[in-house]
Amino acid sequence: MVLSLICPTKDATPWVAAIQAIAPELDLRVWPDDGDRADVPIALVWAQPQGIFAQYPNLRVISSMGAGVDNLLKDSSIPNPVAVVRIVDPRLVSQMGDYILAAALNYVRQFPVYGRQQQQRRWQPLQPHNLDDVTVGVMGLGQIGRAVATRLERLGFRVLGWSRRPKSIAGVHTFADWPQLADFLAASQVLVCLLPLPPATENCLSGDTLGQLPPGANVITAARGQHLVEADLLSLLDSNRLAGACLDVFRQEPLPPDHPFWTHPKIRITPHIASLTAPGAVAPQIVDNYQRLAAGQSLLNQVNR
Amino acid sequence: MVLSLICPTKDATPWVAAIQAIAPELDLRVWPDDGDRADVPIALVWAQPQGIFAQYPNLRVISSMGAGVDNLLKDSSIPNPVAVVRIVDPRLVSQMGDYILAAALNYVRQFPVYGRQQQQRRWQPLQPHNLDDVTVGVMGLGQIGRAVATRLERLGFRVLGWSRRPKSIAGVHTFADWPQLADFLAASQVLVCLLPLPPATENCLSGDTLGQLPPGANVITAARGQHLVEADLLSLLDSNRLAGACLDVFRQEPLPPDHPFWTHPKIRITPHIASLTAPGAVAPQIVDNYQRLAAGQSLLNQVNR
Repeated sequence: MVLSLICPTKDATPWVAAIQAIAPELDLRVWPDDGDRADVPIALVWAQPQGIFAQYPNLRVISSMGAGVDNLLKDSSIPNPVAVVRIVDPRLVSQMGDYILAAALNYVRQFPVYGRQQQQRRWQPLQPHNLDDVTVGVMGLGQIGRAVATRLERLGFRVLGWSRRPKSIAGVHTFADWPQLADFLAASQVLVCLLPLPPATENCLSGDTLGQLPPGANVITAARGQHLVEADLLSLLDSNRLAGACLDVFRQEPLPPDHPFWTHPKIRITPHIASLTAPGAVAPQIVDNYQRLAAGQSLLNQVNR
Repeated sequence: MVLSLICPTKDATPWVAAIQAIAPELDLRVWPDDGDRADVPIALVWAQPQGIFAQYPNLRVISSMGAGVDNLLKDSSIPNPVAVVRIVDPRLVSQMGDYILAAALNYVRQFPVYGRQQQQRRWQPLQPHNLDDVTVGVMGLGQIGRAVATRLERLGFRVLGWSRRPKSIAGVHTFADWPQLADFLAASQVLVCLLPLPPATENCLSGDTLGQLPPGANVITAARGQHLVEADLLSLLDSNRLAGACLDVFRQEPLPPDHPFWTHPKIRITPHIASLTAPGAVAPQIVDNYQRLAAGQSLLNQVNR
């Protein structure tokens, strides 16, 4: 019973090592060298080539390598009886919080601006922002957005939240649905996008919305690249309407080498690492599901398709 | 009664504006164009030319433009009867905390490494550190060091503290004096220097001490440049013994344009801004002391020389 790893954009080595460390007997193979695909009932998957599952006639379980399954579920080659499971890892939430806190504090203490000055060997002190005078707006108040908003608030930021449906979070002034978006944006000096990706939020960070942020605002994206209209961000940065952006997600990943974001002085890029599954931390739940499948038991963390 | 601003390395303009905004009648002049120096009983000073006070025969009060007075007090031209006062600003403590939190979180989420990768247009996710697995060692547990250690601990870091004399801080494992320094250093993945500058701590960040940090450690300096033996830091970074440094203070400030720190890929430079006095916030206490001097009253925030 073969477990196949299908993850063309990720290095499979640490995943293989982490699984073998706790289940050395498991028959583990890495796509595309995974032998006879009729032997594969379970696949561990990230950013698979679209349509690939048609090549696995006896597939019964697809395990996402992360918490997100939206890209996976778009693949129409997943046969109906196949179960989809995902990773559940509390560290994904805390890591996202660490990332957003770092990016927001970089705005407060102007590290990106001083980084540009360093490249010019320029010694130029700037009047600092004070953390408790800075308002951060969090778009998306699901499990991760709520946790991030709470950590920002505890650190001393003024925090606003926006979500499609009304939510209540202690210490956070919340706004709901599109009619309240303008008031939320007008007060957000740092905008953090942690929205999910239904069709309704695609392209929601456009010139129309980002142009409503206060002058000199910063944008942090760490959910999905499809939220952002990239050309609109570039134009708002180039006209000095926005001061900077810290981007972890992109419409195309890896970000193509000729993309203008790489060299833009006001954009900081991280390679989709804000929330990154650690193979060692989640190998036990992968092996557990492998053993549950073999024993005909119900699976852990199954996604309702 | 003239107040003279003597601050050759700072832009005097915002200070003049802030003082004039609340005391337009005050006779304010900026060195070197401060007219007859016999008319000056009070000077607002930062990084003055050594020996300058000999040119002010009727000087009675020197007000430092910051909280630190160590460089000021080294000037042997301060006549004995002259009183020295300093700025007291609670924001100086909170700003330092924001700076150290930002620098420590940048280490956790590897922003400096991703910044180097961005320059190479390189998309390479790295396994992240988790904040609660990272140990930060704070050297110097005075008013600022204690506040910083407490904020780091509340954010979730493991925090160690070292000071010459034993100190106790809730949630922080403290070490005292030189014999306990080795144990403190060996556990500090991020070393934060917030020491004062008596002769005893000059050059205390040398190859001997920094070489005792765990491999891959980061160093953050935000107190005085004289703590650091610069060549030793460079050699530990170049041999990959240390992973990076975030430096706000330097032996010579402004950092000379040909200094190797500017272009070192593992060093991030900020221009002595971790804790920066805001003229508008402290102008009232400067004007207050001017009026107290004129009225023959006792001064605020006088330093015991």
